[in-house]
Amino acid sequence: MVTIKQPVKATNLGVVTIVGVGLIGGSLAYALHKHKLATHIIGVDVNVNHTKIALQLGIVNEILALKKAVAKSNFIILAIPVQAIVSILPSILNTITTQVVIDCGSTKLPILQAIANHPKAGQFVATHPMWGTEYSGPKAAKKIAFKNNAVVICSSESNSKHALQLATLLYKKIGMHLLYMTAAEHDMHTAYISHISHITSFALANTVLQKEKKATAIFELASGGFASTVRLAKSSAAMWVPIFMQNKKNILDVLMELEVQIAEFKKALLNNDAEALNELIIQANKIKKILDAKN
Amino acid sequence: MVTIKQPVKATNLGVVTIVGVGLIGGSLAYALHKHKLATHIIGVDVNVNHTKIALQLGIVNEILALKKAVAKSNFIILAIPVQAIVSILPSILNTITTQVVIDCGSTKLPILQAIANHPKAGQFVATHPMWGTEYSGPKAAKKIAFKNNAVVICSSESNSKHALQLATLLYKKIGMHLLYMTAAEHDMHTAYISHISHITSFALANTVLQKEKKATAIFELASGGFASTVRLAKSSAAMWVPIFMQNKKNILDVLMELEVQIAEFKKALLNNDAEALNELIIQANKIKKILDAKN
Repeated sequence: MVTIKQPVKATNLGVVTIVGVGLIGGSLAYALHKHKLATHIIGVDVNVNHTKIALQLGIVNEILALKKAVAKSNFIILAIPVQAIVSILPSILNTITTQVVIDCGSTKLPILQAIANHPKAGQFVATHPMWGTEYSGPKAAKKIAFKNNAVVICSSESNSKHALQLATLLYKKIGMHLLYMTAAEHDMHTAYISHISHITSFALANTVLQKEKKATAIFELASGGFASTVRLAKSSAAMWVPIFMQNKKNILDVLMELEVQIAEFKKALLNNDAEALNELIIQANKIKKILDAKN
Repeated sequence: MVTIKQPVKATNLGVVTIVGVGLIGGSLAYALHKHKLATHIIGVDVNVNHTKIALQLGIVNEILALKKAVAKSNFIILAIPVQAIVSILPSILNTITTQVVIDCGSTKLPILQAIANHPKAGQFVATHPMWGTEYSGPKAAKKIAFKNNAVVICSSESNSKHALQLATLLYKKIGMHLLYMTAAEHDMHTAYISHISHITSFALANTVLQKEKKATAIFELASGGFASTVRLAKSSAAMWVPIFMQNKKNILDVLMELEVQIAEFKKALLNNDAEALNELIIQANKIKKILDAKN
């Protein structure tokens, strides 16, 4: 057990442990180094190969087992699949003294429910930086990431001022735009905007692989449009299966709407209804205004 | 009527008319200028505003009405929506003497059927350069385009050697990879690889717009993944409605497979079947190998 003295207004996070030195954990480590937000970064990962690469790439300064890393740290970041967060977060909270813990998971309600009555729940801040790529592992980590994107913070009433201050410090310094929502709101909005995009991309890839038996035809004919639409289909099952399972209710809700929308295209085609197709596309074009405003 | 002498092995296309000075026509014009493939470029467009912009941007050297432009040209490129190609191609062939005509449409069978018995059919080469963006109009035209992408050439037995030589010259010079297929093969493969991507993107945009009533939430939470998947939903109805209508049979075929694939995700979620979700995603990941080999 360690006793750590923190100044009231911290300017850095002190010794930071990153659990999961993959795409998100690795990119966060790069950002921490760059913005001098950590005095020392410890990496923890069940994948021994990833720990070696993370050390080699200078992502982390040291590799330790979880328990030792937590004991030695001021600030702990969980950047692992969401079912692993639910699984290890209570035991991490059992061992901390004054440390602050945050997660970067793509679901929030099951994680907060897992520690709802924990005496140290106030030292945990549930966050979701809305940035990622379709790749995974420490080699996929990017030195330029997160900036100008949103981070959702699902703070709870029990959160200590200190914990919120440190989480806020981290995300502000790396250039993210802070949004506050309840966990339920977060899980609904991300199902609508992020999780469904992954399902359509996976389903599209499976459709094309099923129908187009000639891989050479896909290879030769795939233009930028296809590559863009199917890009997320490269995403890892290890990350996405737990997200889909944990956010099942919201995802099923939006999946049923997707089925309705696809059926609308089918109906218009079957009816030779150019006017209906036209209306469906003009409606879809409204997304342009929203997306272009962002860029 | 003009009589044009062409050398046996042309090194340029002479006077070129581009019908449709939008994204594709405009980008082709830039490429013709760059590679010195045209001695003079005439633009034809029903949209007067587009003709003005095309002149201002230096995309074309002159704007003329269709009939005059055709009479003055050696080589005519149709870069207009596919139903417009079907509609005007026979009358263009009625007026040509030795000119060669190509189109850039995303469907091929209905276009070739429209001129199947035309005495000048041999002077028309059906082509489809597999390049584009989600934008349209002359301002969307790109100075760097087409290169390293595939162009499908659906040559027919009746094609004159001269017509094929010129079409080949054009696409080789601008750096495209030539693929030869029948029109039926083209329409099937593009339904599977290109057209379905547009439908999933339109349907995804409509799903999100339907479920996510808060435009600010979409704006704030949309990350790169969402933007990528929904990018094609910005594409114009004027271009895509005729493609969907003309390639209806192939598109319905692949659309039904998409419904099956989405239903698989839904079933796995409803059954809490993590193993099935895992298998669906691992299957979809196979697209990575094909796409990454390309880049």
